[in-house]
Parts: sequence; structure tokens; C-alpha cells
Amino acid sequence: MTGKLIGIGTGPGDPELLTLKAVRAIESADVIAFFAKSGNASNARAIAAAHFRPGQIEERLDYPVTTEIHRHENGYKAQIEAFYAEAAKRLAAHLDAGRIVGVLSEGDPLLYGSYMHLHVRLAPRYDTEVIAGITAMSGAWSHAGLPLVQGDDILTILPGTLDHADLVRRLGGTEGAVIMKLGRNLPKVRAALAEAGRLSGAVYVERGTMEAGFSQSLSEKADDLAPYFSLILVPGWSTRP
Amino acid sequence: MTGKLIGIGTGPGDPELLTLKAVRAIESADVIAFFAKSGNASNARAIAAAHFRPGQIEERLDYPVTTEIHRHENGYKAQIEAFYAEAAKRLAAHLDAGRIVGVLSEGDPLLYGSYMHLHVRLAPRYDTEVIAGITAMSGAWSHAGLPLVQGDDILTILPGTLDHADLVRRLGGTEGAVIMKLGRNLPKVRAALAEAGRLSGAVYVERGTMEAGFSQSLSEKADDLAPYFSLILVPGWSTRP
Ligand SMILES: C[S@@+](CC[C@H](N)C(=O)[O-])C[C@H]1O[C@@H](n2cnc3c(N)ncnc32)[C@H](O)[C@@H]1O
Ligand SMILES: C[S@@+](CC[C@H](N)C(=O)[O-])C[C@H]1O[C@@H](n2cnc3c(N)ncnc32)[C@H](O)[C@@H]1O
Repeated sequence: MTGKLIGIGTGPGDPELLTLKAVRAIESADVIAFFAKSGNASNARAIAAAHFRPGQIEERLDYPVTTEIHRHENGYKAQIEAFYAEAAKRLAAHLDAGRIVGVLSEGDPLLYGSYMHLHVRLAPRYDTEVIAGITAMSGAWSHAGLPLVQGDDILTILPGTLDHADLVRRLGGTEGAVIMKLGRNLPKVRAALAEAGRLSGAVYVERGTMEAGFSQSLSEKADDLAPYFSLILVPGWSTRP
Repeated sequence: MTGKLIGIGTGPGDPELLTLKAVRAIESADVIAFFAKSGNASNARAIAAAHFRPGQIEERLDYPVTTEIHRHENGYKAQIEAFYAEAAKRLAAHLDAGRIVGVLSEGDPLLYGSYMHLHVRLAPRYDTEVIAGITAMSGAWSHAGLPLVQGDDILTILPGTLDHADLVRRLGGTEGAVIMKLGRNLPKVRAALAEAGRLSGAVYVERGTMEAGFSQSLSEKADDLAPYFSLILVPGWSTRP
């Protein structure tokens, strides 16, 4: 009898945004796995830790140091592939031993999440379940109290890593938008919003639903600093029936 | 002292997908409000009911019968506006009396939800909080075990109410897509997916995370019946690193 793989969405930061289902899965798993940056505490682990049980095995999956290699270079791809293959192997050993393995995933596991890379490698071979999580964008617009789309509106989710022209084009063809993965892309994103005529409505959300989280109009944000936990919301709903 | 308005996301159907925060809000509200179609049970109420407290006031907000009027006609708009204005007035009376009013919202309150119409009317005047919920799309792709977008992928959320040409154009310019509001739009949506070359990967999800929910490849779905609780997922993530 092999075990079971469970992708567990932890939500965007507030531990109260864990679902009842996620809490039960965390409590009952034999192994709790999570991704982390070398030397840093894992955010997903911090969200879930209050529900850990003594005796649970923790599997910390440390990303290789990739910040020095640009992600479009070959070296990056090979290194990150080897990392996911190795991580899947570590979890497979637990599954082969009949253990229930919960993988903590920030936000929702299947939306731009590292869990996806384990899922595609392990789901064909093992019993698998995915527990949806509150996405970062839902956390952000709830935190900001900003209704996003209604009726026939289109909502487009854009990674800030897209190039300027692409961003302008997509922003021009949508009512609502969410721009994730800001970091050093913020100046480019800001310029694209301005060119698409969407800057004035844009709202910047940092650490949405987390402690010291806040939101502000992007045009009032004076600097171009955007930490990992930040995104931009462009509301599409202008007509209030 | 006026009360507080709380928009409470109930998630897509599985009561276990309520967040801890939603449960506490449901338990402690003085008034629980929810939208419903005349003569039908409220789905949001059913998801949350296990956490109701004796003595709580229930405010059922019955949509006016609008199915006979097409939503682009003037009659529809006037009727639905009057309905939201009246609903806001009913809740305002409770808020003025100092009560905490929780409004149950399927999925996430600020994503294509009726709660938004109360929010814009009441949030300027009363203390307001929004509790994010698991969206229907997260529930659907988790239910189907289908990774949706990764890396630089764009994700576009499209209402099935858009016209054929619009759907084709948007499907051509995105990696991942979610098509909501199917119903009688399904034949049109299916044709648009085929024209955009995206039919083969599309997955149909009905009653995601609910009892008797299921998913299947859209091209294998023989009929064009799509109940209210259904959507289509188009995965964008083809390259597996
Ligand atoms: C790799 S994606 C993970 C998305 C996650 N799986 C989800 O369901 O939302 C990371 C991005 O999410 C956004 N993010 C995550 N948590 C956030 C928070 N609490 N506040 C604002 N943005 C957040 C940032 O834009 C960040 O670049
Ligand atoms: C008015 S929108 C509400 C969306 C909701 N506020 C959310 O956050 O997902 C209703 C649409 O959501 C989709 N939907 C809601 N629940 C669903 C479920 N359990 N399974 C599949 N689709 C669902 C259907 O496409 C339906 O037309």
C-alpha cells in the first residue's frame, strides 16, 4: 500500500484564511513538505505551523541558489529541473513507505505554484488530492476592499515578468487585471499601466492579509520598491448598477 | 454606534472549504444575509448553515424574477438596481441598530459576486470587512487535479456571455483560460474554443468540489447541457520543466 500526496493551499498569509479542509490535512499528514529559500524561514510553514502534530516528519525543500543565473539561461533550467526531480524522489520514498505526504503551498497550489512541479511528477503514480487555497489576488482585493470584476468583465492575470509591449497590449484588452511577480519589474509595469491608460485606477497591495500588510493607490506610491509579497490590482468594474 | 458589514466568502461548494475566518464570522454575526433565487434554496446558506447559531437573524435577499427579461434590456437594469438598493436598505437598518451583518457569498465575494453591489453601496458609510473565499475556478482545477499556469503564463478569465468573435480573440492571446457562466452559452463557447485551436485541452467541470461533482474533457462531452455550477478550464502550462 502506497501513501497519498496532498497539495495543501495555505492561502496568502493570514493563518485564519486556512480552510477547514487544509487544517485537517495538516493535522493528519505523516509528512509535511514545503519549499523554502536557502537560509530563510518558509512562509507556508509559518502559516500552517500552529496545526502541526508532534512526531510529524518535516521535509524542507530548499530551492537551489538561482538568483545569480537569469531564468532564461540554460543553466537555470537544468538546475531547477534537477531540483524538482530530486524533491519528487524524496517525497516518493515516503509515499512508497505508505505515508500521507502534505505539501504546503502558498495561496492556491495549482496557480503559479511550485507544488505543480511535484504534482505532474507524482500524480500519475500515486493517489493524489489537491486542496484549493485562497489565492494571493483574492487576499489582496479583499484586504483592499476593492471589487474587481462583474457581469461581462474580463479579468486578466499578468506576470510582471512579461515585457513592456506585451503588458501594454494585454492591459488594453481587458477590464480587470492583476499583475503579480513585481520585484524589480515595478518600473516597467508602472510605465506599461500609464501607456495603457490604466495607471490612475491601479492599486498596489503589499503583504496582503499579512501582518503590516497595506494597500495604496499605485500613482501615490513614491518609490519603485516591491518586495516578493506584492501585486497590483486594476479594477474593471466602473459601472455601478 | 453602528454595526459592521462583513462579506463572507463561502467557497465553491464543499463546506470544508470554508476558511477558519469565515467560520468565526458566521458564528459571531448577529444577522446572516444571503442571496437566493425565488423559490430555491440558497447554495451559500447550505454551505454555511452548520455554523449558524440559534437566535441569529436571517435576511434572505430574493432576486427579482429577471429570467424573462434579457439582461441587456432597460427593464432588466432598472429592476436589478431597485433590488440592490432595497437590499442595501434592509441591511443598513441592521447596521444602524449596531448589528454585525455577515453576507454569505459563493466563492470569493469580490469576484463576479452579488455581494459587490451591497459593498459599493454600504462600505462608504459603515465599518466593512471582506473575507476572501476559495473561488469557483480554484475549486474546479483542484477538483480536476489540473495545473493551470506557471512562470510567465497569462491567465484570462472569460464570461461565457461574451460574443463568439470576442471569445476567439481572447483565447488566442492567452496561455491559460477559465470560462465561467456557461449555461446556454456552451455551444458558442465550444465553437470559439475550436476556432482558437484550444478545444482539445479544455476540461469541463460541473459542480466542482460539490457532491456529485465531476470533470471531463470537453471534447468528450456529448451534450451541450451546462447547469449554473459549471465552467471550463483551459490549461496554459504545456512545458514541464
Ligand atoms: C509564485 S506566485 C504564487 C501564487 C500563489 N500560488 C497564489 O495562489 O496566489 C508568487 C506571487 O504571488 C504574489 N503574492 C503572494 N502572496 C502575496 C501577498 N500576501 N500579498 C501580495 N502579493 C502576494 C506576488 O505577486 C508573488 O510574486
Ligand atoms: C456569478 S459567478 C460567481 C463567482 C464566485 N464569486 C467565485 O468567486 O468564483 C457564478 C459562476 O461561477 C461558476 N461556478 C460557481 N460555483 C461553481 C462550481 N462549484 N463548479 C463549477 N463552476 C462554478 C459558474 O461558472 C457560474 O456561472
